[in-house]
Amino acid sequence: MIQNNKIKLIQGGITAVDGFKATGLSAGIKKNESPDIALITSDVPCTVAGLFTKNRFVAAPLLLCKQHLKKEAGQAIIINSGNANAFTGEQGKKDAKLMASETARYLNFPLNSIFVASTGVISEYLPIQKILSSIPSLIKTLSEKGSLAAATAIMTTDTVAKEVAFEGFVGKQKVRIGGITKGAGMIHPNMATMLAFLSTDISITKPLLQSSLKEAVDSSFNRITIDRDTSTNDMILLFSNRKKGQIINKRGSRYNQFTSLLKTTCLKLAKMLVQDAEGATKLIEIKVIGAKNDSAALKIAFSIANSLLVKTAFFGEDANWGRIIAAIGNSSVKVYPEEIDLFYGSIQLVKKGTYLGSALEKKISTYLKNRELNLVLSLQTGNGQASVWTSDLSIDYVKINALYRT
Amino acid sequence: MIQNNKIKLIQGGITAVDGFKATGLSAGIKKNESPDIALITSDVPCTVAGLFTKNRFVAAPLLLCKQHLKKEAGQAIIINSGNANAFTGEQGKKDAKLMASETARYLNFPLNSIFVASTGVISEYLPIQKILSSIPSLIKTLSEKGSLAAATAIMTTDTVAKEVAFEGFVGKQKVRIGGITKGAGMIHPNMATMLAFLSTDISITKPLLQSSLKEAVDSSFNRITIDRDTSTNDMILLFSNRKKGQIINKRGSRYNQFTSLLKTTCLKLAKMLVQDAEGATKLIEIKVIGAKNDSAALKIAFSIANSLLVKTAFFGEDANWGRIIAAIGNSSVKVYPEEIDLFYGSIQLVKKGTYLGSALEKKISTYLKNRELNLVLSLQTGNGQASVWTSDLSIDYVKINALYRT
Repeated sequence: MIQNNKIKLIQGGITAVDGFKATGLSAGIKKNESPDIALITSDVPCTVAGLFTKNRFVAAPLLLCKQHLKKEAGQAIIINSGNANAFTGEQGKKDAKLMASETARYLNFPLNSIFVASTGVISEYLPIQKILSSIPSLIKTLSEKGSLAAATAIMTTDTVAKEVAFEGFVGKQKVRIGGITKGAGMIHPNMATMLAFLSTDISITKPLLQSSLKEAVDSSFNRITIDRDTSTNDMILLFSNRKKGQIINKRGSRYNQFTSLLKTTCLKLAKMLVQDAEGATKLIEIKVIGAKNDSAALKIAFSIANSLLVKTAFFGEDANWGRIIAAIGNSSVKVYPEEIDLFYGSIQLVKKGTYLGSALEKKISTYLKNRELNLVLSLQTGNGQASVWTSDLSIDYVKINALYRT
Repeated sequence: MIQNNKIKLIQGGITAVDGFKATGLSAGIKKNESPDIALITSDVPCTVAGLFTKNRFVAAPLLLCKQHLKKEAGQAIIINSGNANAFTGEQGKKDAKLMASETARYLNFPLNSIFVASTGVISEYLPIQKILSSIPSLIKTLSEKGSLAAATAIMTTDTVAKEVAFEGFVGKQKVRIGGITKGAGMIHPNMATMLAFLSTDISITKPLLQSSLKEAVDSSFNRITIDRDTSTNDMILLFSNRKKGQIINKRGSRYNQFTSLLKTTCLKLAKMLVQDAEGATKLIEIKVIGAKNDSAALKIAFSIANSLLVKTAFFGEDANWGRIIAAIGNSSVKVYPEEIDLFYGSIQLVKKGTYLGSALEKKISTYLKNRELNLVLSLQTGNGQASVWTSDLSIDYVKINALYRT
């Protein structure tokens, strides 16, 4: 009997899906010859879904991607790090297009099938010749095991390359989703960018792929918070080569199974971002249950997760629940003190609004030494719940963002 | 000829206004015998205006103050530091009332005329006996020069006591406004509280005093941002003994003159709070001009002022304008890159969205070494403008909030 719900972590990142190749190398954009350009290709045209930054100043490569997303098929993504091609006006648009058109020419793919992403310094023009010159080498080094090379080449101040892949069932069909991501903590010298690229072999219509991605991102990348700044370059692309199963053309159990697998993949990548946030020493899940509805739970969870005081207290491994109470009170949601139950992991510190005493603080201090932490706020209002993931705010965060200069 | 607009900084803080006395001493609430209780009185019943925290968990003393504010007259304020009497349920309400009623009894004033404030640890019950025992000594030490003693006694982790007074004209009448304030940066061990107490001799109706205070606070205390957390205990009280001039009973030039004087006083106190914010090394004015309207300007200014990346860059004395651009893009206001002019002090770094070059960065680096900085964003959309004041985000902010434990 097939275990439909069994989701398995597998090796291979974005190239775990058959038909996808990737590579990464140095084009000399960064000063120290570290990898700074990546290429991801599919052997067949793919259905593409994409999500883009909500920052008003959308960088040039994103404008191009949005155009290409309107077409039916995508087949390659070229990404550079070291320069964001943001706030670069008309020249930036030309450069992004040139990056795409030259990639298209060398690969012999249609221009519309090429997607472009950039991350790094803003307001400087792309060293476009360096990028264009690297395209033949990129193509030459494309590999079915190239995920890690690509994940490495898109890093900025990330400390580790981030890739993941899962295998699961959609109906009776085994499918895969793979992905790579980089840096959500805003990064020197100007801003960070959250980039994520995903591959899958599911057969699905374009509108459903887009809505599935939206759902998955809403419960993963949109549930993490590091410093609340949104970059001009944030983007997520999902390529499906539609090699597996009968096409999903309506909502239902197969759509839900795929979305669930996609959520798992996105959440894993998103947590990697939080864990690698600048200076972060903790990955903290803030879970709110028993709220009026999910939206209320989410508001409260974000209010806690975004409080600098809560974040610094976690860095200090300090069970400073007063700050959590204050953060709850700062959310726009109506909460009464007497309905607050608060747990650090499985240790209950507050019951119906009453502090259970300093005897517990030692136990909690021990718990707070863990790198992964759970804070659970249980209300008695309804069935709404939500989790968000945040990092602590450390001395190194300030050092990295204030003092680190090239 | 009388110079109506001449506003003069004077000595004396809250007791600069004739008829007000103040004092501060140690009641033993704090461990180290530092001053932790203050009393402010007026020789006659006063018209009172007040503003209170928007945090949902309003502390007990604020609930009492809100009740007493509905009555006509106020005559004394008793304030303790070291314990916030917040999240203390029914016991907290009783304690706040007892603090007021005993003060009323000793002073022989009506209970309704006594206002109460607390700041410090949350969720612990007030050491009410210590507070009550201190009342006779407080009354004995009340002094027309007691402002600084009171300002000192309400401090928590503030590094300096904060008081100010101004003298100006309302019509032909010379009037005074004095005030003391404490800690806006959220403070160990649980949360900070912004408290401000103001005195004046203006003769004005209660509704107009309230609306004048609201206007003044909206352009001062509500324009500062340190870490965006709002405490359960924030409050501002303004007492007027109505000794000077004919009563202001309608809006008009006299109301405006008084409000302007009150704004000056509140802004001075608010800036003192930012300068004394935890770990702050800079006081930064973020000024937006040429926006569609004032509200749009304010949104953009706060988006810049609240960005952790902008704040850490100021700490690092780094002219990281890309982060400012990103913060502008993160506000909900429609701004086009080509309408952005950006100045650090009087040095223009961006003109119509174009970066004026790295030649300027050395000049700006020198400018950024100042303790007081101005960032001006000039748009070309309209006549809207707004200023907000913020501190930098320093390593010491994190240290104070994460690592400092009693």
